[in-house]
Amino acid sequence: MSASETVYVIKVGGNVIDNPALLDKFLADLAQAPGLKVLVHGGGKIATRIGDKLGIESKYVNGRRITDAETIDVVTMVYGGLVNKQIVAKLQALGANAIGLTGADANIIPASKRPVKEIDYGFVGDIAPGAVRTAPVKLLLDAGLTPVFSPLTHDGKGQILNTNADTIASSLAVALAAHFPVRLIYCFEKKGVLRNAADDDSVIHLIDRNIYGQLLAEGVLTDGILPKLENAFAAIESGVKEVLIGHADDLRSNTSDKVAGTLIC
Amino acid sequence: MSASETVYVIKVGGNVIDNPALLDKFLADLAQAPGLKVLVHGGGKIATRIGDKLGIESKYVNGRRITDAETIDVVTMVYGGLVNKQIVAKLQALGANAIGLTGADANIIPASKRPVKEIDYGFVGDIAPGAVRTAPVKLLLDAGLTPVFSPLTHDGKGQILNTNADTIASSLAVALAAHFPVRLIYCFEKKGVLRNAADDDSVIHLIDRNIYGQLLAEGVLTDGILPKLENAFAAIESGVKEVLIGHADDLRSNTSDKVAGTLIC
Repeated sequence: MSASETVYVIKVGGNVIDNPALLDKFLADLAQAPGLKVLVHGGGKIATRIGDKLGIESKYVNGRRITDAETIDVVTMVYGGLVNKQIVAKLQALGANAIGLTGADANIIPASKRPVKEIDYGFVGDIAPGAVRTAPVKLLLDAGLTPVFSPLTHDGKGQILNTNADTIASSLAVALAAHFPVRLIYCFEKKGVLRNAADDDSVIHLIDRNIYGQLLAEGVLTDGILPKLENAFAAIESGVKEVLIGHADDLRSNTSDKVAGTLIC
Repeated sequence: MSASETVYVIKVGGNVIDNPALLDKFLADLAQAPGLKVLVHGGGKIATRIGDKLGIESKYVNGRRITDAETIDVVTMVYGGLVNKQIVAKLQALGANAIGLTGADANIIPASKRPVKEIDYGFVGDIAPGAVRTAPVKLLLDAGLTPVFSPLTHDGKGQILNTNADTIASSLAVALAAHFPVRLIYCFEKKGVLRNAADDDSVIHLIDRNIYGQLLAEGVLTDGILPKLENAFAAIESGVKEVLIGHADDLRSNTSDKVAGTLIC
């Protein structure tokens, strides 16, 4: 392995996890993608479904989900166990030597329980800048393994914490950027950043700070995409080489030079 | 690390997992034990409890549990997620750099779905002799990590399989014996092999083939302990240096030269 080999940190969301056909194609593409790969998966609706069956009510305050003591057990089971290990077993069958992890494993992602201000989010973990420990991840990548992270961290005091998968992906990407060129790929349900929200084929393939300024001035960007772009530029300013926003279905091209999605650099 | 450093492969059963006070003490002792450690945990009753709540009936044939499609999902969640990650988070808090695994992770324990003869056990995995892949385990041990295995394997075709924790522990111990001196420790609810089943303090501290023959001739061994001893001698004949049977509460002495339990060699 060359030290200059690109690491792809790939985040796949719950909508793909919940769609078996889409997930299987995505995992097959991931297994065939070249280079070093780190997968971060979201949870999907299965945690809510299982929580409902267990009689645990989903609690929301101002539209934000609250992770109480019962809910953290459910997401630890479902994200860290069922979803993570099924993905690992499938990747193994596809020839990718996957290893499933939470942020507690090898103490890779220490986090802090979010402080209670207006809202008590419960067992939700925030990752401080610089907190991610890259040595174990580098050890696994160097050994040819593909780490697969569920959206869980820990507080170092014995408590598992629920953490946003996008945040885990960007934190890992920023940390690994000290050792490798990193492309951070967010897979979502659109082909990329669209010039015309009604036209799925109006993907803007390249955005840098200048183009971003122009797009803002033109007013073509939707509210939904603005935070994603701000997060992308934040990752780039912290050392990530490039961020790609694209469809889960386009992973093969998005791990190549011929990107189908939007490359932000 | 010296190549001759002893590896302790420690199996802890469901009765400890189900008892928070006993589990916490056991994990504190494990964190403080010297040397290289691999933990294998059983499941405990929580999988049955959660399965019941989810409306999944536990199925038994001739007293043997059947792992159907719904049950393998429950044990994947509970053993591979909840139990495993809670143990990892607790060990991290105690200063042991634990990493939670199933046999699917890094393809460490490939297994075969048990063939259907009189009974269809469902998604139960049997481990073939020589199947365990030690390279990833050695990589983790060499990096100062403590692997923590849940009782799950995989078939290499994408399916997670339920596998007896004792079998996982002995398979790992035999495989690691090619690289390290290995002490395989079975923690159970007695202090060791007893000369008098009614007297918890009548522990026989050392058993070799000769002493075993004598004990059999004297008829002092109970039916429950015979298969454990046969398995212990089988592990030793496959290269494991010694096997120890003892109480979870005695882990500190049982990872030292002053064993409280029964050492089989």
